[in-house]
Amino acid sequence: MRNAFHDELDSIGTSLLQMAGLARVAMSEATTALLTVDLGLAEKVIAADDVIDEIQHDLDARTINLMARQQPVASDLRTLVSSLRMSADLERMGDLAHHVAKQARMRYPNSAVPAELVPTITAMGLVADKLVDKLSSVMEHRDAARALELETDDDEMDKLHRELIAILLSDNWPHGIETAIDMTLLGRFYERFADHAVSISRRVYFLVTGEFSSN
Amino acid sequence: MRNAFHDELDSIGTSLLQMAGLARVAMSEATTALLTVDLGLAEKVIAADDVIDEIQHDLDARTINLMARQQPVASDLRTLVSSLRMSADLERMGDLAHHVAKQARMRYPNSAVPAELVPTITAMGLVADKLVDKLSSVMEHRDAARALELETDDDEMDKLHRELIAILLSDNWPHGIETAIDMTLLGRFYERFADHAVSISRRVYFLVTGEFSSN
Repeated sequence: MRNAFHDELDSIGTSLLQMAGLARVAMSEATTALLTVDLGLAEKVIAADDVIDEIQHDLDARTINLMARQQPVASDLRTLVSSLRMSADLERMGDLAHHVAKQARMRYPNSAVPAELVPTITAMGLVADKLVDKLSSVMEHRDAARALELETDDDEMDKLHRELIAILLSDNWPHGIETAIDMTLLGRFYERFADHAVSISRRVYFLVTGEFSSN
Repeated sequence: MRNAFHDELDSIGTSLLQMAGLARVAMSEATTALLTVDLGLAEKVIAADDVIDEIQHDLDARTINLMARQQPVASDLRTLVSSLRMSADLERMGDLAHHVAKQARMRYPNSAVPAELVPTITAMGLVADKLVDKLSSVMEHRDAARALELETDDDEMDKLHRELIAILLSDNWPHGIETAIDMTLLGRFYERFADHAVSISRRVYFLVTGEFSSN
């Protein structure tokens, strides 16, 4: 049976999906800005972070308001509490895309990414994109089976992260300390972005199955 | 007027304080392990992170249970929602201390921190300790004035972080890329630890005053 409460729950779900979509675009465009040395695109990503933050504020206010008015229990309450946590993760994913874009802007008109690392960063960007694309589908369809796939995708991100560090540590790294610092931080931003996506997919898994998918 | 509900709220507050105390000890001991090359202490911090995680799980379950049973509105609901967010920040602070301890362990029996950076890391450890000590007092006494002090302390952490990067970038940095990567990550761990402390103090400020202290 549908009622006004469930309509409001749906609308919260829609806003979470909207945040996931914006975080996806932000990270994808930040990666492009980084790899193509596109200052305009970097600035666009940096400015767009405010939009994600505003949606989060509005969404959290609506969630808390719904808790106060409808006094949900059991699974509805768990869904609302999870919404607050997911919006925090999605907001942080937006921040991380913003950090990547700021690296692109900081080194402009030079490229922040040396040629040796373009394949690795390209791959990290693609894995990030795949993760948040799957995550949206997991959130929209409450798809527990697909939620588990994100764990494997995250392993792929960790592998790329190790590969990045190995390249920095190779004997013939010619780019000096500053670039190594930049790349260490960039690697961390992609890795954390993936971690937050996994964290959200675990929450969906738990909501759907009542079990923890991992730790 | 006191009642069972407010007793339970108090007990949630006590658990949050306990988490803050554990995060403080963890970061302080992780810093000592790092600077004194103490493997046993690093292992202790790494193992202790499970305790913080368990307290968080238990605390969140009690908070959600209290929401379901007591159907709080207005300021009581805001307090409970904030508790969930604070416990997430405190859990993350514990993770960051754990990351610092893992750096100490990874480089053992060598020191992870070269002599030039011992003063900066020592200072970052002290600022982290001061922040979480003040934070505990802010949380315990709902002290909005003191909450604002954490913003200044965080500026101090950011300054130390810039100092650390400047030392890595100085022309006579003799320690190579690997140590630069380690120090970049360590700097980030301390900086993020401070950010989470500030985030919690802002939540307390908002609960007490109804205003945002910043952004």
